[in-house]
Amino acid sequence: MDTITMVGFIAGTLTTVAYVPQVIRSWKLKETKDISLTMLVLYAVGVSLWFVYGVWTNALPIIVANGISLVLILVLLGIKLRYR
Amino acid sequence: MDTITMVGFIAGTLTTVAYVPQVIRSWKLKETKDISLTMLVLYAVGVSLWFVYGVWTNALPIIVANGISLVLILVLLGIKLRYR
Repeated sequence: MDTITMVGFIAGTLTTVAYVPQVIRSWKLKETKDISLTMLVLYAVGVSLWFVYGVWTNALPIIVANGISLVLILVLLGIKLRYR
Repeated sequence: MDTITMVGFIAGTLTTVAYVPQVIRSWKLKETKDISLTMLVLYAVGVSLWFVYGVWTNALPIIVANGISLVLILVLLGIKLRYR
């Protein structure tokens, strides 16, 4: 793997993994009042489009990162809608 | 501009603009208890690396989106540290 693909994978890992502590926190607190619903919805749609962009341009880091991000953000959205 | 660059720009606009309602909400509420600090820090580092990735691969949507995202996430991090 070349260096820049590696940088992309690290970047993708971080912006993806970032949502794990958020999901854990929201799940534990059962409270999401401080998190903007609009943010979650816009982010979910955006990440879906990044996924399309990644597939189209054949950029593996973008595909993997945004695929996982989408799952995490949907879980978070579910928690948000359950415990507003 | 070709179609896929446009998709990238829309994706980047959404995942970037997503943080605007979050910044506004956090600023208004003066409360960020439900937002994970670890998430914000990991996200800030990740977005910085995406920026590097974008510059390196000459992908304009990635450069612009992550540059603005970085500013917004740093503002949010500032609010988080101020009003824990």
